[in-house]
Amino acid sequence: MGELTHTKTAITPTRSEDFAEWYQQVVRAADLAENSDVRGCMVIKPWGYGIWENIQAQLDSMFKATGHKNAYFPLFIPLSYLAKEATHVEGFAKECAVVTHHRLDLGPDGKMRPAPSAELAEPLVVRPTSETIIGAAIAKWVESYRDLPILINQWANVVRWEMRPRIFLRTSEFLWQEGHTAHETREEAIEEAVAMLEVYATFAQNHLAVPVYHGEKTESERFPGAVQTLCIEAMVQDRKSIQAGTSHFLGQNFARASGIKFVSRTGAQEYAWTTSWGISTRLVGTVIMTHADDDGMVLPPRIAPSHVVILPVIPKEEARVSVLEAAEKLRAQIASLRYADEPIRVEVDRRDFSGGVKNWDWIKRGVPIRIEIGPRDIVSGTVATYRRDQLAKAKTFEPVAETVAKLPAILDEMQTKLYERAKLLRDANTVRIDSKADFYDFFTPRNEEKPEIHGGFALAHWSGSAEVEARLKEDLKVTIRCIPFDPEIRDDEPGRCILSGEPSPRRVLFGKSY
Amino acid sequence: MGELTHTKTAITPTRSEDFAEWYQQVVRAADLAENSDVRGCMVIKPWGYGIWENIQAQLDSMFKATGHKNAYFPLFIPLSYLAKEATHVEGFAKECAVVTHHRLDLGPDGKMRPAPSAELAEPLVVRPTSETIIGAAIAKWVESYRDLPILINQWANVVRWEMRPRIFLRTSEFLWQEGHTAHETREEAIEEAVAMLEVYATFAQNHLAVPVYHGEKTESERFPGAVQTLCIEAMVQDRKSIQAGTSHFLGQNFARASGIKFVSRTGAQEYAWTTSWGISTRLVGTVIMTHADDDGMVLPPRIAPSHVVILPVIPKEEARVSVLEAAEKLRAQIASLRYADEPIRVEVDRRDFSGGVKNWDWIKRGVPIRIEIGPRDIVSGTVATYRRDQLAKAKTFEPVAETVAKLPAILDEMQTKLYERAKLLRDANTVRIDSKADFYDFFTPRNEEKPEIHGGFALAHWSGSAEVEARLKEDLKVTIRCIPFDPEIRDDEPGRCILSGEPSPRRVLFGKSY
Repeated sequence: MGELTHTKTAITPTRSEDFAEWYQQVVRAADLAENSDVRGCMVIKPWGYGIWENIQAQLDSMFKATGHKNAYFPLFIPLSYLAKEATHVEGFAKECAVVTHHRLDLGPDGKMRPAPSAELAEPLVVRPTSETIIGAAIAKWVESYRDLPILINQWANVVRWEMRPRIFLRTSEFLWQEGHTAHETREEAIEEAVAMLEVYATFAQNHLAVPVYHGEKTESERFPGAVQTLCIEAMVQDRKSIQAGTSHFLGQNFARASGIKFVSRTGAQEYAWTTSWGISTRLVGTVIMTHADDDGMVLPPRIAPSHVVILPVIPKEEARVSVLEAAEKLRAQIASLRYADEPIRVEVDRRDFSGGVKNWDWIKRGVPIRIEIGPRDIVSGTVATYRRDQLAKAKTFEPVAETVAKLPAILDEMQTKLYERAKLLRDANTVRIDSKADFYDFFTPRNEEKPEIHGGFALAHWSGSAEVEARLKEDLKVTIRCIPFDPEIRDDEPGRCILSGEPSPRRVLFGKSY
Repeated sequence: MGELTHTKTAITPTRSEDFAEWYQQVVRAADLAENSDVRGCMVIKPWGYGIWENIQAQLDSMFKATGHKNAYFPLFIPLSYLAKEATHVEGFAKECAVVTHHRLDLGPDGKMRPAPSAELAEPLVVRPTSETIIGAAIAKWVESYRDLPILINQWANVVRWEMRPRIFLRTSEFLWQEGHTAHETREEAIEEAVAMLEVYATFAQNHLAVPVYHGEKTESERFPGAVQTLCIEAMVQDRKSIQAGTSHFLGQNFARASGIKFVSRTGAQEYAWTTSWGISTRLVGTVIMTHADDDGMVLPPRIAPSHVVILPVIPKEEARVSVLEAAEKLRAQIASLRYADEPIRVEVDRRDFSGGVKNWDWIKRGVPIRIEIGPRDIVSGTVATYRRDQLAKAKTFEPVAETVAKLPAILDEMQTKLYERAKLLRDANTVRIDSKADFYDFFTPRNEEKPEIHGGFALAHWSGSAEVEARLKEDLKVTIRCIPFDPEIRDDEPGRCILSGEPSPRRVLFGKSY
């Protein structure tokens, strides 16, 4: 951050000056999304939505490869459904958008209003999650063990009213997928929850270039109504943690609430064992915070809406036709190549803006590769290539055929490098801590130099007490991110809780989170 | 319908007995969707959603090929936004779901309720369509003519409260896409509206195997706030009409309401010209009503969730392993083939049900091709193939390699035949009518033989009067489906309105509609 070679940045402030504001500015400069006039609801612009479309398509094929099918369930959940599982409704009650009327009419002041005569008998909650409504459907579908497992996924919008919204990370409406499965046995359901966590981890690492730790949430961080919540946690550039995906083993809680019963192999009536798992548009925020730099977005090639942009250089109007033709020819050549099992996504920027404006526009948008082609290049048969992971002005002149042939390998290299850089940051900032003093010091902001950047992940002993968790949250805004599974950080050696001194069975992962 | 060769049908009642009830039974038997406990909201089950996913993917690539990009806009529309365009809010006021609270709490009766302290200052309408909220965003994006055109599409759920819901055709919540574009000139916007109608028509004909007429709606059937509404209209098996897609030229109405202004080439401030266009999950209903028969669903291959299902025949438990192996080998062979530019979609039905049950299950679901493979087939190297467009028991035994090689051609043939059959029905029931008596007779149900089936499309003269439209709607439930563009039915020869006798510039297309 803030390398000397690079004094003027496209984004103000820089990450080290003000990480939170830098994030907002990257979102804006990269044309990813914007706030709408509806409190907490965002507009996802085409470039941001293109990232989400790639996330969707790639994850979707992983879900299908593991036997899941997509379906769609109502947006509205009757209040009585939500109330079927007590912990569940309690967990979501504070953030529910509630539909109470089904018509508008003109009020006495001549303005439109919810028609008093069209009040619903039962209010409907805009889904904050769909366990109850999907559970009600599955209950109808399942009669015997032969109908199990049910392996369903839904891509949908959900609403959780946010008092402190932050674009992509915490919005009142967001897009997500929610997997919902029902199984014959406890073991099978746990296996499913673990398997889907693994799908998320693989996706985060291989597609988003975001290294993650896997683990289980403590009771206080568990999904309302779940028996176990598994998660993947990423560290972003200010060393805070982002929960990047969760997978819940729901036991028989929701099956009981929704009546998902089946005739077992022995002829008995049993409740099914269910799971649910989800990721959301928050992943786009995670990618920004992990990879973007002081010049704007930096996109992992696998999820970039375009891998390559071709910038026609048109110094004189007479050159326009021939340059645009050459650009189009180059586009077609590149589009016939494949990278990561997909055709390379390439576009020509024909917009009527100056070359400098367009060039910086694409830097800020984080497109992996930019190729300039102008009249002189047509003559010489070469083009100039820029990479987003190199300095803005560093270009390579090479013959067209060579440039094109190298693209898949360059994209691959960029993807790997992004992952490695993120992993280096995370590993360097994941430490074992054995005393309260060190722990408090680790998580206390160094106000002068790095107002926002502090700590990272701490692996420390914890007694299992919710009071300790509450204290650390209060004192330091630190929470247990997970009880980790990863062999490289998992440590089952018993010890003493750093705060209470009580016996602790193992170290857990602490961090400040988004 | 009701051929003599085919006395017992899988669906009761048959189409000729009770078309409306037959439709509901096909939806159920084919496992496409079901009603939920939320009034008017449906659950789209995996097989039905698979059809929608194919519609989405195929149309999406057509939108992208014509320069459109996807984005996402808020689900909630402030009431004041909707009210910006007077005709618009009037058109939707009667069917709006309105969010009035953002939290639940416990009421004095100990039950959850919308928290009185969390009433929203301004009610939010769950989007019935997004012209106003997308218009507000586009207004911020556009400064000069250089920023135009804006070519956006959104895949989303929308809500229009339905008092008489009918699955897929009229549901309170449905899934759709809505294109929204803004242009520099009137001509360009009209060109866009026409071009997108053409995309819909091509898609309906080539992908859904549904022949359509194109045309323009009369003022009384126009989208609230539009200058022109273009549409495609299909005829289904009871000879009623279904509007299968609409494309609206909005003039400057919504640009004015939302403030979409730009600096023109001459430096003047001008309002943009906008369009919107959409298709929805209603298309699934259209496909059912066009192609399904008295044994259940019949799927046009291009949108079938699976093109081929392999049914392992396991007469004795000892044969299980070898049959399943052979089935999997066959699956892999078929999956490597392509049909209509996509890999052939094939699955093995491994469920623990009897062969007869599984066979009929797939007939009812309308999978184009079923292949049975059992121990004897493994020995002989042949398999039995069934086609959904032939009798349920008609099978062809052929060597595996030949069977596999023929699949793409068979699928292609089935797709074409479905289209031709539908077109034959439509053309045979599209007639020119020149007198009121004939018109009334054409649209009056023949109560004894065909209680539901009557009329079809009538091409007749109309004076242009809304009163005539109102009368025909009242008397016969007949409306003007469109003022047609298609050369084969368009007729610009002047005449006299069949009802009023007033001069008429051309014939228009009348029908009863869903």
